[in-house]
Amino acid sequence: MKNIGVLTSGGDSPGMNAAIRAVVRTGVYHGMNVYGIRRGYQGMIDGDIQLMQTTDVSNIIQRGGTILKTARSKEFMTPEGMQKAYEQLQKHGIEGLVLIGGDGTFRGAVKFFEQYTIPAVGLPGTIDKDLSGTDLTIGFDTAVNTAVEAIDKIRDTAEAHDRVFVIELMGRDAGYIALNSGIACGAEDILIPETVTHIDELLNKIEADELRKKAVHIIVVAEGDDFGGATEVHASITERFPRLDVRACVLGHIQRGGSPTYTDRVLASRMGHAAVNALRSGDTQVMIGIVNNEIVHTPFTNVIKGTTPISADLIDMIRILSV
Amino acid sequence: MKNIGVLTSGGDSPGMNAAIRAVVRTGVYHGMNVYGIRRGYQGMIDGDIQLMQTTDVSNIIQRGGTILKTARSKEFMTPEGMQKAYEQLQKHGIEGLVLIGGDGTFRGAVKFFEQYTIPAVGLPGTIDKDLSGTDLTIGFDTAVNTAVEAIDKIRDTAEAHDRVFVIELMGRDAGYIALNSGIACGAEDILIPETVTHIDELLNKIEADELRKKAVHIIVVAEGDDFGGATEVHASITERFPRLDVRACVLGHIQRGGSPTYTDRVLASRMGHAAVNALRSGDTQVMIGIVNNEIVHTPFTNVIKGTTPISADLIDMIRILSV
Amino acid sequence: MKNIGVLTSGGDSPGMNAAIRAVVRTGVYHGMNVYGIRRGYQGMIDGDIQLMQTTDVSNIIQRGGTILKTARSKEFMTPEGMQKAYEQLQKHGIEGLVLIGGDGTFRGAVKFFEQYTIPAVGLPGTIDKDLSGTDLTIGFDTAVNTAVEAIDKIRDTAEAHDRVFVIELMGRDAGYIALNSGIACGAEDILIPETVTHIDELLNKIEADELRKKAVHIIVVAEGDDFGGATEVHASITERFPRLDVRACVLGHIQRGGSPTYTDRVLASRMGHAAVNALRSGDTQVMIGIVNNEIVHTPFTNVIKGTTPISADLIDMIRILSV
Amino acid sequence: MKNIGVLTSGGDSPGMNAAIRAVVRTGVYHGMNVYGIRRGYQGMIDGDIQLMQTTDVSNIIQRGGTILKTARSKEFMTPEGMQKAYEQLQKHGIEGLVLIGGDGTFRGAVKFFEQYTIPAVGLPGTIDKDLSGTDLTIGFDTAVNTAVEAIDKIRDTAEAHDRVFVIELMGRDAGYIALNSGIACGAEDILIPETVTHIDELLNKIEADELRKKAVHIIVVAEGDDFGGATEVHASITERFPRLDVRACVLGHIQRGGSPTYTDRVLASRMGHAAVNALRSGDTQVMIGIVNNEIVHTPFTNVIKGTTPISADLIDMIRILSV
Repeated sequence: MKNIGVLTSGGDSPGMNAAIRAVVRTGVYHGMNVYGIRRGYQGMIDGDIQLMQTTDVSNIIQRGGTILKTARSKEFMTPEGMQKAYEQLQKHGIEGLVLIGGDGTFRGAVKFFEQYTIPAVGLPGTIDKDLSGTDLTIGFDTAVNTAVEAIDKIRDTAEAHDRVFVIELMGRDAGYIALNSGIACGAEDILIPETVTHIDELLNKIEADELRKKAVHIIVVAEGDDFGGATEVHASITERFPRLDVRACVLGHIQRGGSPTYTDRVLASRMGHAAVNALRSGDTQVMIGIVNNEIVHTPFTNVIKGTTPISADLIDMIRILSV
Repeated sequence: MKNIGVLTSGGDSPGMNAAIRAVVRTGVYHGMNVYGIRRGYQGMIDGDIQLMQTTDVSNIIQRGGTILKTARSKEFMTPEGMQKAYEQLQKHGIEGLVLIGGDGTFRGAVKFFEQYTIPAVGLPGTIDKDLSGTDLTIGFDTAVNTAVEAIDKIRDTAEAHDRVFVIELMGRDAGYIALNSGIACGAEDILIPETVTHIDELLNKIEADELRKKAVHIIVVAEGDDFGGATEVHASITERFPRLDVRACVLGHIQRGGSPTYTDRVLASRMGHAAVNALRSGDTQVMIGIVNNEIVHTPFTNVIKGTTPISADLIDMIRILSV
Repeated sequence: MKNIGVLTSGGDSPGMNAAIRAVVRTGVYHGMNVYGIRRGYQGMIDGDIQLMQTTDVSNIIQRGGTILKTARSKEFMTPEGMQKAYEQLQKHGIEGLVLIGGDGTFRGAVKFFEQYTIPAVGLPGTIDKDLSGTDLTIGFDTAVNTAVEAIDKIRDTAEAHDRVFVIELMGRDAGYIALNSGIACGAEDILIPETVTHIDELLNKIEADELRKKAVHIIVVAEGDDFGGATEVHASITERFPRLDVRACVLGHIQRGGSPTYTDRVLASRMGHAAVNALRSGDTQVMIGIVNNEIVHTPFTNVIKGTTPISADLIDMIRILSV
Repeated sequence: MKNIGVLTSGGDSPGMNAAIRAVVRTGVYHGMNVYGIRRGYQGMIDGDIQLMQTTDVSNIIQRGGTILKTARSKEFMTPEGMQKAYEQLQKHGIEGLVLIGGDGTFRGAVKFFEQYTIPAVGLPGTIDKDLSGTDLTIGFDTAVNTAVEAIDKIRDTAEAHDRVFVIELMGRDAGYIALNSGIACGAEDILIPETVTHIDELLNKIEADELRKKAVHIIVVAEGDDFGGATEVHASITERFPRLDVRACVLGHIQRGGSPTYTDRVLASRMGHAAVNALRSGDTQVMIGIVNNEIVHTPFTNVIKGTTPISADLIDMIRILSV
């Protein structure tokens, strides 16, 4: 394989640039031409493609976002879009692809790869960590640390005012960011999609704490929690305790950005390196994952968006430590 | 003066602890007993008061929030509340007060100080910088830097996706946080209460930029802007440009917390030190301010909540630099 | 078991406070009295011991250092010292211990535990990650991220001046901090004790790079590297290339401090929780470790200070990515 | 004036990129061609010059270092070097210059400007704040905050171990970084070139503190202190108190790098904007400064490297607060 392309797709996540750097440099090292495809599949259709040199990825390992930009493409979901995309790959002689993004990035393109027989390897680039086949996704570690720093700041105010704060973190389908941020910040309650939220228990706990003069509560809630987000939780609390000083806070997009942590940089570097090696060895149509600190390959068709159950032991611990 | 009290009141701001430390240590150095009054005027009424030693303020200069906690007190607005508060001061022999907070902290208490003849000195502790009599308030510098770090993170995503972001910062009456954060982050537009917001101009600018393929826009808006906050601006943009990818983000309470910057720590230290000196010299019923890097005193009755006009030169610069 | 003690010993590491918090709260939850023993074994001898409540560990999960302080004790190495320490434990009725520190903390005390039949459980609290029986130690993740942030800053200057920087990181016996920081910062060279340093190869590489006008080099060296530290490497480079602008930088103690990352806080919480459970179930004289994300127990006598070989694949990757 | 050039020279400082951005955009706004001259005067001699567009300075306001790189040039000190430099300016039609750097950047070039009649305006870009004619220099605010964050981390360890730390900060001729960092971190002692260091007083203070069981000391020393740097202070302390646990730490180059604070970004933006305006209005051969928050101009020949005396009141305060 002589010419390969690399793209980022879906929501951006910190570490994508480190992955791009690793793909480009590993490819070049092995004598390949590595083409950067900008704006994901839409850029592929539009021919927004250019050859990348080793120096094009200098000094980007520490940058958030993605220098290749990312986008969603409806056109790519059509036969005409796929045909155009294929023609652009042909035009540049691109024989293989490295795809960095969430499950939609690989699974949404499986049909395309099959129809046009394109070898492809995926990297899990998403802050949500909601993919099977890997213990970690690129961006998760940074996102949790960003959330933790923000919650630490909010706790300063909560402690100063004896307030209740309901803080909503990202995670439409998975509660990993909320769960880990919540433990790390000593949150009094953590509401996630993986467990059933009993709002009455939460309210009773607040009442009990008020009685024993523990007035500070940090409640961390994943945006995809079954009961609702910060707005819904806030409403329930103020309805029951109208005199309590309760604030809701949606942390929002700051969780996606920022300079990646060392974990995300090393992970992205290893995965980008492994992706090119997988393309070279013909082990394709797989997502690169990391399981127990070893690189593993999972066929695209087996990559499932979802979460694993939270262990009873961990839930126990959370309850004990957040008194 | 032998016995003094110190309290924090109103919204907390980073650097309040540094100010408390300076008051306690300067007081103790001059042989005074310094009493910490917890939870502002409410704690004064409740007698939540204790003698502080030099070591009680060790290792707090770098902490956000306030170790004395803060609260708002309706009871203090009543004659009965004031009477109770006075009795508690009498009980502890407290002859003078250092008050750290916003304009309400000093001005709201002027009647109390007059009625009971209590010497008091105020420190401007608020992130909003919306007080006359001082170039800087304790917490402002930290709040702006916190906002800047958050917007930098959001820009990563904005650049990756070619998106428009509307980011709402604190500032109900003053746009200083938004103005300075916006300049520092290279925001394409900055909407503040001090200037009239012409939403049509903003929309036209977005249209023009779209035509020349500049798709990333960071719009920073102060919560007190005359047109509205992030929600209103977001609605206007999506109404006119329904296909544009626009996101709204309310930064919220993280702006209040966090370890103070050096500027806020040094400022708070100088002001706390100056407050005790003012009490000692009998120059009381004043707010300590800093003007052109010199400590100045402004009578409580002259402290006005408000903002100064933004210079035409600065507005010019913003327009030129944010192309 | 009704009364237990907890101490920190050896060098401090970020996350120790999170571990103390977990030990105290888990103990209290199970009806135990948890005694904090200050300044490690020296405090045990001196009787610097006090009962801890749940609230004593409020709001410390995010703090660096250790609220129990740490110290090294020569006296504890003597029979008299051990006898005194035992008497203090007796006096407080302490029946079991949780020890947080490096290998010396557990292994150095094995004799004491045996002689006086004291059940003890250890937690690996060290930034160096140089212990067998665990994939991670409390503090490592924070230390690497601190180093990475510092090196990122230095790279700004290196890029501005086209300079060579030799940066020495902690790690007397293990190169994990240097290895991971180096990969994460895109260091041009990484010198660690686990591999033989061929200084000539390094110098030849610099020469080759100079010829192709790549003037920026970040060389990360572990303090325990076989060739030497930053001073030695710096001397070798300037000897061979007297006209090159080369700077040496010893990062030093900032690597130990700071607010712990989420990984260290969650790890410390899980380990502290597990330690009390181990004491309760009688599974003692073990160090708590984490292997493949599961809690494991390793007998003190099997805990070895040391490092595992770096995989050839990783070394390959480093070489390829740092062109 | 139609064509202008901009360069950075001397040591890099955070905010230089913000200044470059402001110069380019203000110039382009006024219809000028703005040339970036890389590597300072050496790049001028070498003709390392290229036209810059508005988009070349997109997304750099938050970056440390300087995209134009910086260098020192001995060749420029020779008549031949100046002649070559002038020819390059002629070749590109450059009629005016904006110079960003320390005093050497402007003063060292005065002869060149005079001989060849080149209008030039300077911006104070140095972390040291050791220039007359301005209250602030670009990079100072960031450098102090970087130092403060580092010292906060070291204090964690100092508190954990009851240790004495001697921390050396940058400042060969001026103690501003050390002075402000020291106050902000609650340093027990601050040694700066502006005051005479009496090492005996320092040692006596340590002795007195030891007697009253205050074992933690942070001593901040400017590299240019009259007594010496961290090494010398460390040696004096260990000589007198051989049993004390004393550590020396040279903070080094991390102080130069990193993303600039809002203060440095806004300052650099204002100064860059003002510099182009000065060139346009013919008010040249001056350094732009900021005094009492207003832009001022100081003729190059009046710019003096030096420091102002520290006020007795401030020294008093430091002594009182650092008990």
